[in-house]
Amino acid sequence: MKVQIEFSLIPIGGDPHLSEDIALCEKILADYGLEVELHAMGTNIEGDWDAIMQALKACHEAIMEKGRSRIYSVLKIVASREEEKSFQEKVASVRYQLEKLMN
Amino acid sequence: MKVQIEFSLIPIGGDPHLSEDIALCEKILADYGLEVELHAMGTNIEGDWDAIMQALKACHEAIMEKGRSRIYSVLKIVASREEEKSFQEKVASVRYQLEKLMN
Amino acid sequence: MKVQIEFSLIPIGGDPHLSEDIALCEKILADYGLEVELHAMGTNIEGDWDAIMQALKACHEAIMEKGRSRIYSVLKIVASREEEKSFQEKVASVRYQLEKLMN
Amino acid sequence: MKVQIEFSLIPIGGDPHLSEDIALCEKILADYGLEVELHAMGTNIEGDWDAIMQALKACHEAIMEKGRSRIYSVLKIVASREEEKSFQEKVASVRYQLEKLMN
Repeated sequence: MKVQIEFSLIPIGGDPHLSEDIALCEKILADYGLEVELHAMGTNIEGDWDAIMQALKACHEAIMEKGRSRIYSVLKIVASREEEKSFQEKVASVRYQLEKLMN
Repeated sequence: MKVQIEFSLIPIGGDPHLSEDIALCEKILADYGLEVELHAMGTNIEGDWDAIMQALKACHEAIMEKGRSRIYSVLKIVASREEEKSFQEKVASVRYQLEKLMN
Repeated sequence: MKVQIEFSLIPIGGDPHLSEDIALCEKILADYGLEVELHAMGTNIEGDWDAIMQALKACHEAIMEKGRSRIYSVLKIVASREEEKSFQEKVASVRYQLEKLMN
Repeated sequence: MKVQIEFSLIPIGGDPHLSEDIALCEKILADYGLEVELHAMGTNIEGDWDAIMQALKACHEAIMEKGRSRIYSVLKIVASREEEKSFQEKVASVRYQLEKLMN
C-alpha cells in the first residue's frame, strides 16, 4: 500500500535539544532508500507502508539506543487506492488555486 | 518494541458518516488480538510496534476495499525502553495529581 | 463556532514525568467551565472555539510559569456547521456498528 | 505567547479534492499578516497564539460558508518561553547534524 506520511518526533524528558535525534532519524530514512522532505515541523515521506513503518521503527530504536528513554511521535498518513499526486504536485495545486483567489 | 498508540482515521471525501469505517477498523484490531480503548476522538492501542502497524495497514486496506478511495489518519506514538505505565495507570496518575491541585 | 477537540501535551526536555503538568492543564480546563474527557493519550474537549483556545493558552502559560521552558502539543479538531453528535453518541455509534459486524 | 504551529485540514465528506479549501485558508492566513510555509502535508505558521488561533478560526468558518459541513484539522504546536529558533534555523540545525553523521 502506497502512502504519504508526515512524521515528527519529540524525545520525552532530558536534553531539550532535538536536532541530533532528528538527524539520526533522517539518516536512517535515507539508508532505507526513502524519499523524504524535511521541513521545520516534521518530515514528509512518500513510499510503501511496510518500508516506511520499518524505517520509522528503526528510528525509534536507534534514538533509544543512543540514550533517550522515551519518545513521543506523531504520524499523519494519506493512504490512497489510486496514484496520489506527488508532494510537489500537491503544493503546486494549492498555489495555483491561491493565485486564482488573489486575482 | 512496545508502544502505546492513539489512532484516528477520516476517509477523504464521499459519505460524511464515519462510524461504519471506524467499526470495521475496531473489528480488525480485535481480530489481531490487540488491546484497545475506543474514545470519541480515536482509539488507544497498546502492544508491539509490528503487530499494531500490520493491523492498522489491514484497517486501511479493508476500508478502501469497501469503497473509500482515500483515507487520512493520525497516529500518536509513545515508545519506551522500559515498561511504560498502562493506560489505566496513566489516567489514574493524572487524576491523583489533579486531586492534589484541587485541595 | 462549536468544536470538538482532542488535546495532548508533552513538555520538551527536563523531567520526563508528565502527570503533574497534565493535571495542571485539566484543572485550568475545569476552571474555564469546559466539559472534558480525560483518556490515556489526551483530553477530549467539547465547546466553543474561543473558550477552548483561551483555556489551552492558559494551560501552556501556567506550565511554563511552573518551570517548563518549551511545550509540544497536538490538537485534533472537528468543526461542524450543524449540531455534532456528542462524544458519548459518537462512541455509541461505533459500538453499534461494531456489534452488527460481529454478528 | 509566541508559538510555532503546523496546521492541516481535511473537510469531512463530499468533494475529495482539497486544494481549493486549503488555498482559501492560505489566503486568510496571508490576510491576517501571518508568516507561513506551505508544504505537502500542512502549513507551518509562526506568530502569536491569539493571532494564529483567530486566523485559523476564520479559515474554518470560511470553508464551511463555502459549503463544507464538517472539517477535521490537526495542529502541532511548539510553545516556548524564550525566543525559539526560526523555521529556517531549525531545518539548518538538523541538516548540520545530518552532515556530521554522514561523514
